[in-house]
Amino acid sequence: MNNNIVKLQAYLRRRKIDGMLITEPSNRRYLSGYTAPDHGIQETSGVLLVPAKGAPFLLTDSRFLLQAEEEASGYIIRQYKKGLFSLLQQILPALKIRSLAFESHYFLHSSALRMEKMAKKIKVKLVPIVGRVEQMRVIKSEEEIKGLKKSQHLNERVFQLVYSTIEPGMSEIEIGLAMELTMRELGAEKPSFDTIVAFGTNAAKPHAVPTDRILQSGELVLIDMGLVLDGYCSDMTRTFIAGKPNETYLERLRVVRKAQLAGIKALRAGVICRDVDRAARKVKGNTGCGDFFGHGLGGGVGLAVHEAPSLTQRSRKKLRAGMVVTIEPGIYLPEWGGIRLENMAVVREDGCELLNEDVTGMDI
Amino acid sequence: MNNNIVKLQAYLRRRKIDGMLITEPSNRRYLSGYTAPDHGIQETSGVLLVPAKGAPFLLTDSRFLLQAEEEASGYIIRQYKKGLFSLLQQILPALKIRSLAFESHYFLHSSALRMEKMAKKIKVKLVPIVGRVEQMRVIKSEEEIKGLKKSQHLNERVFQLVYSTIEPGMSEIEIGLAMELTMRELGAEKPSFDTIVAFGTNAAKPHAVPTDRILQSGELVLIDMGLVLDGYCSDMTRTFIAGKPNETYLERLRVVRKAQLAGIKALRAGVICRDVDRAARKVKGNTGCGDFFGHGLGGGVGLAVHEAPSLTQRSRKKLRAGMVVTIEPGIYLPEWGGIRLENMAVVREDGCELLNEDVTGMDI
Repeated sequence: MNNNIVKLQAYLRRRKIDGMLITEPSNRRYLSGYTAPDHGIQETSGVLLVPAKGAPFLLTDSRFLLQAEEEASGYIIRQYKKGLFSLLQQILPALKIRSLAFESHYFLHSSALRMEKMAKKIKVKLVPIVGRVEQMRVIKSEEEIKGLKKSQHLNERVFQLVYSTIEPGMSEIEIGLAMELTMRELGAEKPSFDTIVAFGTNAAKPHAVPTDRILQSGELVLIDMGLVLDGYCSDMTRTFIAGKPNETYLERLRVVRKAQLAGIKALRAGVICRDVDRAARKVKGNTGCGDFFGHGLGGGVGLAVHEAPSLTQRSRKKLRAGMVVTIEPGIYLPEWGGIRLENMAVVREDGCELLNEDVTGMDI
Repeated sequence: MNNNIVKLQAYLRRRKIDGMLITEPSNRRYLSGYTAPDHGIQETSGVLLVPAKGAPFLLTDSRFLLQAEEEASGYIIRQYKKGLFSLLQQILPALKIRSLAFESHYFLHSSALRMEKMAKKIKVKLVPIVGRVEQMRVIKSEEEIKGLKKSQHLNERVFQLVYSTIEPGMSEIEIGLAMELTMRELGAEKPSFDTIVAFGTNAAKPHAVPTDRILQSGELVLIDMGLVLDGYCSDMTRTFIAGKPNETYLERLRVVRKAQLAGIKALRAGVICRDVDRAARKVKGNTGCGDFFGHGLGGGVGLAVHEAPSLTQRSRKKLRAGMVVTIEPGIYLPEWGGIRLENMAVVREDGCELLNEDVTGMDI
């Protein structure tokens, strides 16, 4: 059986909880190998029921039975025909589960109300738990780090292939599509998030959505992209000028790059997350805006493109070896545009190791 | 102000509730015009706070401020820097909101626990509500129906463009990519769900994910696709043979098509949802499998690709004029493959109106 399941079961026994429901899709994949995606939290493709001892269950509906049987090795697959809670009402007493944990951070309030009714009927005690499996996921094994590196390297290859074709006259949508098409042609499952391509002032929105705006010569281009390869996500951002960069741009770029390097330098096991953010944020320079980025400096990447830890101004968590994070400072000026540079790195005992090789727009 | 907001405010006043939080992304768009997508329920791009009287608020973080100001006309935009609940703790007393409804069906259990603490501090009563705005959305205006028709027609055009190029030697992934690329080239925002392309036995999975399987001459092809155009979703499924269909296939296809036509015939304002499902399901014929489809016959489509009503064996809801639904019976035989046919239709007083014109594979 999957080693992660063994660890989770040991945790349940330590806490004297008889079983746990896993609803969060990346946790489900991490524990079972079952890859079906959810179409939003209201439309799950299955739920794990992990007893503190014995074989775990994957509960799903008829649409996913075949895939569940193919992928979730070691799992007992059960189909719910009248909904999850009606099936649980049968299974829980049969397994003598009297206390049941569930993922409070990935469980709808309305579903919890219905589950409470069911649990009351069969005298099961519910235990809301937040982030337990995420906590396991935050430290990556060397095999997972290899997977993340492969994902980011493929991401860089895709970027370079399309980057070499970018020229004035192309639209943001066109470049975004070319990126996503190339990702999948080269074997990615899908983009890890909606690709951002933003020209000029559009780049002032940190989460810009590509438009049909046409690239003009000399304009700024910001591309934020990532893909999923064998389940693992990548994420990187590059900003460059279509043509010859002017001095204002270069001056601002240098500040962002300096901030990024300061963040990378601060990244090491034992350091507090917000101190990494602070190291980047305290870089000073002529950016034209008082404030640095309103978002955090970066965050964890793994099976999900956004996961723990958070490198924000408020996070007091301590970095540990094996965490994988982005370092992505930026500046945003609504009248002018924005610059963001983003790499991924794995935290090591004595520093960090970059998962990127690409240096587009950073040779300044 | 948006007419939908006026209706929601009237509802709140009738129920003597001072305000409501809107967290569900399609509801947010419906009420405000704000189009930013969420990256999962744990990463919202904003929340509406609708007081029973007066101007509504859109609460968001720094990443989305510009877009919010551009799109949410009539809204007061406020930024949360220390999280949503900390901002609410200031705003609610200022607006004299003493009872606050929230969308229980799109609110995490863990967030509700935190909101309860905040509400207790400022003596605000919380009122969980399920599906109120969805209920408003279920009856489409003629303008919305026009939007859905445009979306489905574009979907059909995309299908036909790519269909005419399909030949043995292509992979499922390749065809799926061509569909999604063509969607966006022709102006769609994005696919409304992950395009399904399944050959032969792969089509036995109702939610198949495209693989690198290569199409052989004479094999069955199932394509289930949809796109988003100006916010509105389309959804259709076609099944056909790459080459000359054999008698087994045709016999099974005829049963599915008959079931679809029976469903369409039963579709009319005043009919109970499950009776439409039943009308299709009771069609008999030599399908090679005892059971018809394990899923429901269809469901509503609008700003979301899956919304109310549900045409399932259990739904006792009554159909009303202006509802827009899919009719998608199917058969699935693991050793052989699957056939599903899916059209969209708008419910009218005296029957229904199909949103499809395409008849690929249905001329039998």
